[in-house]
This record gives sequence, structure tokens and C-alpha cells, in this order.
Amino acid sequence: MAQKPSIPKGTRDFSPAEVAKRNYIFSIIKSNFEKFGFQPIETPSFENSETLMGKYGEEGDRLIFKILDSGDYQKSIKGHVDDYVEFDNQLRDSIGILMKDIDDSFGVEIRTSDNIELTCFEFGKRRDVVNKFDESIDYCLNYFTNNSTKLLQETIRLFRTEIIEIVVHTLYYIDSQSDAELMKYKIAEGYFPMFYKLAFDITFNPLKLSKLISEKALRYDLTVPFARYVVQHQNEIEFPFKRYQIQPVWRADRPQKGRFREFFQCDADVVGSNSLWQEVELVQLYDSVFSQLGLNGVTIKINNRKILSGIAEVIGASDKLIDFTVALDKLDKIGEDGVKKEMLEKGISEEAIVKVQPLFNFTGSITEKIAKLADLLASSEEGMKGVEELTFICENVAELGLQTANLDLDVTLARGLNYYTGAIFEVAAPKGVAMGSIGGGGRYDDLTGIFGLKNMSGVGISFGLDRIALVIEELQLFPETVTATSKALFLNFGDAEAKYAMKAISQLRKNGIKVEMYPDNAKIGKQFQHADKRGIPFAVVVGEDEMKNNVYALKNLATGEQQKLSIELLIEKLK
Amino acid sequence: MAQKPSIPKGTRDFSPAEVAKRNYIFSIIKSNFEKFGFQPIETPSFENSETLMGKYGEEGDRLIFKILDSGDYQKSIKGHVDDYVEFDNQLRDSIGILMKDIDDSFGVEIRTSDNIELTCFEFGKRRDVVNKFDESIDYCLNYFTNNSTKLLQETIRLFRTEIIEIVVHTLYYIDSQSDAELMKYKIAEGYFPMFYKLAFDITFNPLKLSKLISEKALRYDLTVPFARYVVQHQNEIEFPFKRYQIQPVWRADRPQKGRFREFFQCDADVVGSNSLWQEVELVQLYDSVFSQLGLNGVTIKINNRKILSGIAEVIGASDKLIDFTVALDKLDKIGEDGVKKEMLEKGISEEAIVKVQPLFNFTGSITEKIAKLADLLASSEEGMKGVEELTFICENVAELGLQTANLDLDVTLARGLNYYTGAIFEVAAPKGVAMGSIGGGGRYDDLTGIFGLKNMSGVGISFGLDRIALVIEELQLFPETVTATSKALFLNFGDAEAKYAMKAISQLRKNGIKVEMYPDNAKIGKQFQHADKRGIPFAVVVGEDEMKNNVYALKNLATGEQQKLSIELLIEKLK
Repeated sequence: MAQKPSIPKGTRDFSPAEVAKRNYIFSIIKSNFEKFGFQPIETPSFENSETLMGKYGEEGDRLIFKILDSGDYQKSIKGHVDDYVEFDNQLRDSIGILMKDIDDSFGVEIRTSDNIELTCFEFGKRRDVVNKFDESIDYCLNYFTNNSTKLLQETIRLFRTEIIEIVVHTLYYIDSQSDAELMKYKIAEGYFPMFYKLAFDITFNPLKLSKLISEKALRYDLTVPFARYVVQHQNEIEFPFKRYQIQPVWRADRPQKGRFREFFQCDADVVGSNSLWQEVELVQLYDSVFSQLGLNGVTIKINNRKILSGIAEVIGASDKLIDFTVALDKLDKIGEDGVKKEMLEKGISEEAIVKVQPLFNFTGSITEKIAKLADLLASSEEGMKGVEELTFICENVAELGLQTANLDLDVTLARGLNYYTGAIFEVAAPKGVAMGSIGGGGRYDDLTGIFGLKNMSGVGISFGLDRIALVIEELQLFPETVTATSKALFLNFGDAEAKYAMKAISQLRKNGIKVEMYPDNAKIGKQFQHADKRGIPFAVVVGEDEMKNNVYALKNLATGEQQKLSIELLIEKLK
Repeated sequence: MAQKPSIPKGTRDFSPAEVAKRNYIFSIIKSNFEKFGFQPIETPSFENSETLMGKYGEEGDRLIFKILDSGDYQKSIKGHVDDYVEFDNQLRDSIGILMKDIDDSFGVEIRTSDNIELTCFEFGKRRDVVNKFDESIDYCLNYFTNNSTKLLQETIRLFRTEIIEIVVHTLYYIDSQSDAELMKYKIAEGYFPMFYKLAFDITFNPLKLSKLISEKALRYDLTVPFARYVVQHQNEIEFPFKRYQIQPVWRADRPQKGRFREFFQCDADVVGSNSLWQEVELVQLYDSVFSQLGLNGVTIKINNRKILSGIAEVIGASDKLIDFTVALDKLDKIGEDGVKKEMLEKGISEEAIVKVQPLFNFTGSITEKIAKLADLLASSEEGMKGVEELTFICENVAELGLQTANLDLDVTLARGLNYYTGAIFEVAAPKGVAMGSIGGGGRYDDLTGIFGLKNMSGVGISFGLDRIALVIEELQLFPETVTATSKALFLNFGDAEAKYAMKAISQLRKNGIKVEMYPDNAKIGKQFQHADKRGIPFAVVVGEDEMKNNVYALKNLATGEQQKLSIELLIEKLK
């Protein structure tokens, strides 16, 4: 027996019940995205490598799944081997002709003379021969550089100088034993190993290899493909463009609990408007989705990159900003003294710590917190711009009201420090649920600059589907109907009965009711068991008696209650 | 300015309007799958290579997109180089020790003697030294075979014999100039190039390369992953298992009109039942989906593998079956004489052609066609089994009735000849639409055998989403509401007005109405233009006057009509 098959680590199969639960979350997110005016786009699963590489830092580049060029690549390799043999033959031929030219011009005795210096000197005098030789080599190399496969081209490009050098060397420094055969051999000795070395170099250097044999890579997130989409389709898009995208992404991360190599991202972004009303609406969007999911009491944490820049100014060390926020974030756990100790250890001056003292007692309402920040950052122009933005967003959110979520200002929130330029968001699950952030986002002033379209501000949020699903599962918030299967199973007592059942089934389905028939005339117990295991609530029993009276016996499998019904009443009952 | 970005050939971006149209088709297919009792599963985008390779023939293997091992692979290469250096050092050390052993045993003069035969003879006598040498080499090789990277292991495995041979050779056939240094050099000369050659061999042999650097591949269809799923989860599945799956697949086919490298498949299959009622229901399912899409008058072509086997028996050449059906399929185009001429050219005997004469006048109702087949195939047991199956399916479909589709028996239908064992289906677009098949399927008696689970019959159908979308577009059958965007755009006249607007927007969204606000206080003309370009039917104008009177001015952008409404009436109006 064959080995039981498996799937790659970090990936998942989803059973019908799991798909149903995920779709439930997707559909609520999707309908809210649309209610808020976002429109769906979809981008290809793989992008050109140059679209993705270099966009996520060195670590990201490493974690991007690269796709081997296929089909064409395999052909090009076959083509390459042919090219390579042809290259070899041509070079040998050219050198053979040159040998004859040299012999004709100088006589064999010069070429095979013991006096190498003399030979070179004589050769060097004959510019025409030297030129002819150069031409001949150049012809070969150019021919193959232009007509051969990517791999041979690369070989020639990399080793052009060396190839010429070997040929020249061999021709000029002829030793006394040399003849045409030996020379050819030497050239072969010279450049064959070079090809080998190149191949070795390529094989053992993943970056070179992947460049030569991979031009595509799997999507790593939805933001970069979105930026690419906006730039590529800029003339068809009506800005401001509110798009949402729900698609899988792939990362070659080490798999661990709750972290997968394939997972869905659900992003909503607006591009082409600086209006802070977007931030207000995104907070409302979070609130609307989580409220509809029954996930009441999430905390939407907000911060602003400009606030962080202001703090960096105040502590006088922008390179210490992460150390500062990481330490400050531990206030609850290690207390004020612990935090200060850590800050000092990280090289933040005592003086700086004194300046930011208000952050150690950063409590109260958002309004009070903002007032404290305004005091603290009074000297920083950028910091005060951040205070202004925060004020607008928080005041409007408060005035318009949230359904079940809480908005909180968290100055330790420093996600996406490298790209966010304004608001920063993160959503924490309701208190009591041990789970990292279930959503995040922010504003980046230059979303599409990487693809050459300047001055396009973007702001967006993302929902962490897998974690949201885990939280909903833990809190038992999935409605029972989510995993609903067929409404009724028609039992199968043979072809005549089955045909009679199928007539009712057709009718029921036309009325939009999910029903099915047990396909085989199996033992009745087995059929009931099937309904039970599948979680189907009703069975319809059709025997001779029912057929004679033109009725259907509907059995409630939970209560055991059974009723004989006309087709009309059956439809009514199962609707 | 950077180059305008692009996407890989054969892939597509989908704009909001395109996504909406595709989702419309998906949702109808999905709801019908569920009405017929099918449940969704999802499998990972990539599978282990061994799950996919060899399942689709040689052509298929070539067209499967392979994924470069990443992250770990890159580390393993670095590790490999380290291992390789270590291997080199250890082997040199071992040989150094051996050299000393040999010199101690025989004296330096023996090893460096001119008399090679004598040296070998002396060595050969000393079993202990020979054994020690073998052990030493074995230790090195085993150590690295067990502890090193995949690539070095493979090197050692492939070249084990050669490595030993070179070392032995070098040790035994010592020429008069040899000394320890020279010997080491020779060994290096011997096995270094071997590594190079291996790298060369790997680099230029795509199959070897992809095996070493790729363990995963993108899904090529949904059937093989489904079979894998069934076998892997056989203990959790309640059979018969009716599953549907709507996911993208990837093929490295040459892209052309209507053929893409990434496209969705929509499959419904039942596994674990031989009942022909499944075939009946699958015909109904096709009918139900296409009718609901408004695609009336599709032709569901049916055939049976056993009928084809019967015909092969009758023409006395099963290897000519494809030639036969291909020729017969041209009856409309080239006439009876043309078809017979082609058959003769393909080596089908005149006698055989006479026997199958009824197929040249294969018209009439399905019942009449089946009767002709029963006559023709009377001598073939398998053929008659096919007739019996066809009869059951067609009679029951006829009796239960179809909504808008036509069922037709087509004996030239020979798709999936290599795996289908019973019914074969194909759906043709309504007459007048030039389009290949828009769906297909069939029964395969041994769906999961490739993964070691025997006796699991499967039967299923597939919908060709891209082609269905093209047909619906051509026939203008997409409902206008499909691409519906927001219901109303609130114009933005400044922060105070915007805040007043946002209050209404929150209310409307809570009532499930899609509305949005223009984010910036831009010129009024630009804002109206935005609504127009986006296809938003209403604008809501909120100025000082409206705020004062606590109303909203709703403007119908098609008619220009404008009404001042309270929030309650606004909700009513936009619902």
C-alpha cells in the first residue's frame, strides 16, 4: 500500500465545517467593506519577482516563495546544451583556422619554437593576425551572447574576459610540445572547467540560481500588489480609490501555532486622499465588523507616527525609538522603575526620561491623554501635527459613536514604523482572550512611490482572519446555522422509490431548499446513520405506502416525530 | 521615473466590475452545489511534489509550476558550502594519516618506488592497512551522508564509487614523482572537478535540479488534491462524500486567448458510491446552474467509456479508438465519405467500418440512439453494460425533466479516455455561440487508487468559469445590479457639514445600505463627476441650510430630481 499522503508543512486542508466558519467571517467582513464603499479587486497569485523583491527588507526577500520557470525553462535548458556544444565546435573551428593562418604567416617552426619570447614578438608584429584572431573570438562570443539561452549568455557575460584570456594565452604562450591538438585540449581544459565552475557557483548560490531559473514569486502580502495595481491601472481608476481585497498570501516563515505558510489577508485601503475622515471611517469599519461578528469589546488602539517622531525628538535619539516604545510597553508588567532601568540600559539618557515623565502616568480618557501629549510635545512641530491629527480622529469617532468597540490611544504602538507616516492602528481581542492583535493598519503617505507614482497617500486596515476565527471559536460565537448541511436526507428503498423521491427533491431544490437522496439502496440503519453523522436534521422516508398515497413521510431525527405530508406541505415544512 | 509595472503573462488583474461579475457566477454555482447536497472543502495552493508529479502524464509534469525551496533552502546551501569544506578537510586528514601508516609499514622508499606493481603487491598483502583505508574513507563518506545537506548527500551518493576509486587509485598507483603533497593535489584534482561536474549536471538538467531545490508545486487541478484529501482524511469523512471545491489552479501552458496560467475551477464530485442516480443528479445540476444564469439551451452531451470500449471491440482495434472518434466527429463537416476515407487512412479496416455503419446515421431521440447502440454492440458485454447505464441515466433524466438544457448522446465524446470508466459529460454553449465546452466531467472507478485507497468510485463535473463568463458577457446576460457600487455619495462641503453627513452615513450603514462620503472638500463639480464615473446613482447634498433644518438633500443623478428628506425618509428611500 502506498504511503498515506500529506500536505506541505504550514499549509492546511479545510473540511466542510471549517470552510463554512471561515466563509461566515469572510462574508461579514466583505459586506461591511461594501457598506463602507470599498470595492473588490483581485490580483494574480504570483507577481514578477522584481515587483516583490526588495519591498519587504532582506528577511522578506528570503521568505518570498519563488516559482521555478517551467515549461519554457525546461526547453531552454535543452536548447542551452545544444548551444553549448555548438559554441564549443565553433570556437574550436575558429582556432583551427587561426592556427593555420599563423602557420602560413610564420611557418610551423616559429609556432613550435622553444623561444616563446620570439614567437610572441613575431605574433605581436602582425597586427592583422592579432586583429583577425580578436575578431574571430568576438564573433563567436557575440553570436552566442545574442542567440543563446539565458544561462549561456550569462556564462559568456561573466566569463568573457577569461575566455578570451585563455584563448589568447594558449595561442601566444606556445610551449615546445604544443601542436594544434594540444592547444585545443588546453583551451578545452581552460574553459570547460569554467563552465563547470559557473554551474557550481550558480547551484550553490541561491540568489544567482533563483535569478536565472525563477522570474515569478508568490504574493507576500496584498499591499505591494495593490500599489502595483494602482500604478499599472492609474488611467482607468477613479480616485480616491477605495478597494478591498480578500486573497491568500504565502510566506516561507517557520510554521508554528497560529502561523501558516498560506493564509488569507483581508485588506481595505483608500488611495488618493489625505482626508482624516478616512481614519474616522476605518475605526467605524472595525467596530462594525467586530460588532456584527458578536465580538464585542475589542480595543482599537490608535497612535500616530508623528507622535512617535515627536517623542524621538524629545528623547533626543530617533534611533532609540523602538527601544523606548518596547520598554514603555512593559509598564504594566515591570513597573515604572523596571521600565526606566531598561531605558537606561538601552542608552536613553536620564535627562530624556525625565522629560517624558508624563508617559509613565499615561491614563485617563483619550482627551486627557491627548492633552498630556500636547504638553509633552509642544516643542516638536511634527509631534504637534500628530496631536492635531489624533484630536480630529478621536473627537469625531467619539461624537459619531461606536457600537461595541473601544478606541484607545496607545503611544507604545509602533507597528510599521518603516512605512507608516500618519495614523497607526491595531486591534486587540476582547479582554480575557489570550491572542495577539486581530487587525492592524495605518497611513503611508507614499504608497505607490516604489512603482514611480508619487504623491499618492494611502490609508488602510487589515483583518487577521485566522486569529479572528480562533477567538470566535474560543468564545463560541459561531451561530449554529453556520455549518448547516442539507435540510433533509431522502432515504433510498430501491429504484422505483428513488425515482418518486427524486421528483420531490427536484421540486424542493427549485424552491431553494437544500436536500439530497442517499444514493444507494443500502440498509436503512446505515442510511439513518449517514443523516446523523452529517448533521442532517430531517429524513424523508418513501415506501410503497407513501407512493400509493402520493405523500412523503418526514421524520424529525432529533425528536423522532414523523408526519406524512403532500409535496406542497413538505416544501412548506422544509423551507 | 520607474518602469510601469506589469504582471506575469497568462495572469490577470480583476477590476471591481470584473470581480463582481465573476462573484455573481460563483455564487450561483455555489448555491446550486449546496442545494444538491455538496459541501465545500479547500486544499492548500501548493502540494508536495510527489502528490502531483506523475499524475497528469509527461506533458502535465512539465506544466506544473514548481516552487523553489525557500528560506531553509537558502540556509541549507550555506550549510552545504561549510559541509563541503569540512568534507574536504576530513578526507585530506584521513589520507594524510593513511600515508603515514603506509610509510610506517612499508617505508617511504616503497611508496615512492618506480615499481608500481611491487608497491601494489606489497599493499595488497597488508589486509589490515587496506581495511583501515576502507574504513577511513567509509567513515568520512558516511559521516557526511548522514549529517550534511541534501545537495552534498546527493553528491556523495551519486559519486561514492568514483570518490573511493580516485582515492584508491591515487594511493595505489603512485608514480615516482609522488609525495604526500602531490597525492593530496591529485585527489583534489580528482574530486573537485567531480563536484563541479555534478553541479553542472544538476544545473543543466531541470528534472534533477527541481528535485533538489523544489519539494512543492502549485495545484494543477482540483481532482488530484481531492483524491489526496479523501485518502488523508478517510477516517474523518462520512461516505458517500459529496464535496465541491472552487479554487484557482495553475498551469504553465503557453497563454493564449481564453487560456490562462491561473484560473478557477469549480468542481463537484461524489466519492464512495456507484449509484447511477449521481449521474442523473449531475445532469440536473448542470441544468439548474445554467438555467439560473439565464444561459438557456445549453447541450449536455453524454457518452460512456463502456460504449467506447464496445465500439473498439467492434472495430477490432482499441488502439484506433481515438482516431475513430476524431474522424467520426467530423461527419457534419466532411460528410460520410470524407470520414470513411480518414478512417481507412488511419488503418481502420473496411470491414470494421461496415460494421459500425449505423453510427453514420446516428440521429433521432436519445431512446432511438440507444436502441441503435444496443443493436450495434450486442456482441460486446462491456458495450451492453454501457448501454444499460446510459438507458438508466437518460430515462430518469427525461422523466424528471430538465428546465432549459438539452441532454444529447454523443458517441464521439471521448474526453478523459485515460481515467473515466463510466459516464462522460461535456457541456456545449447554446447554439450560435462560438465557444468550446463550458463544462465537463465523468466517472472514474478508481479515484483514490493512486494514493493507495482502493475501490472508491468517484463521479463529478466541472464548470469552466472563464468561458461561462465570456458567454454570459457575449449574450449580455449579466444583471445590471451585478456591478452595483454605493447607493449614494455624500458630498463634502467642509468639516462641519461632513460631520453632519457622517451621522446620516452611520445610520444608513447600520441599515445595511452602501453609502460613502467624498473624503475631501473638493470642488463640487469634481465631486459630482466622481459619483458619475463610479456609477453611483444618488448624491446627498448637505449644506448650511440642510443642517439648520435637519434634513438631507437627495439628488437623483440620472433625472436631476432633488428632494429634501429627514434621516428616516432618506433611509426609506435608499433601502
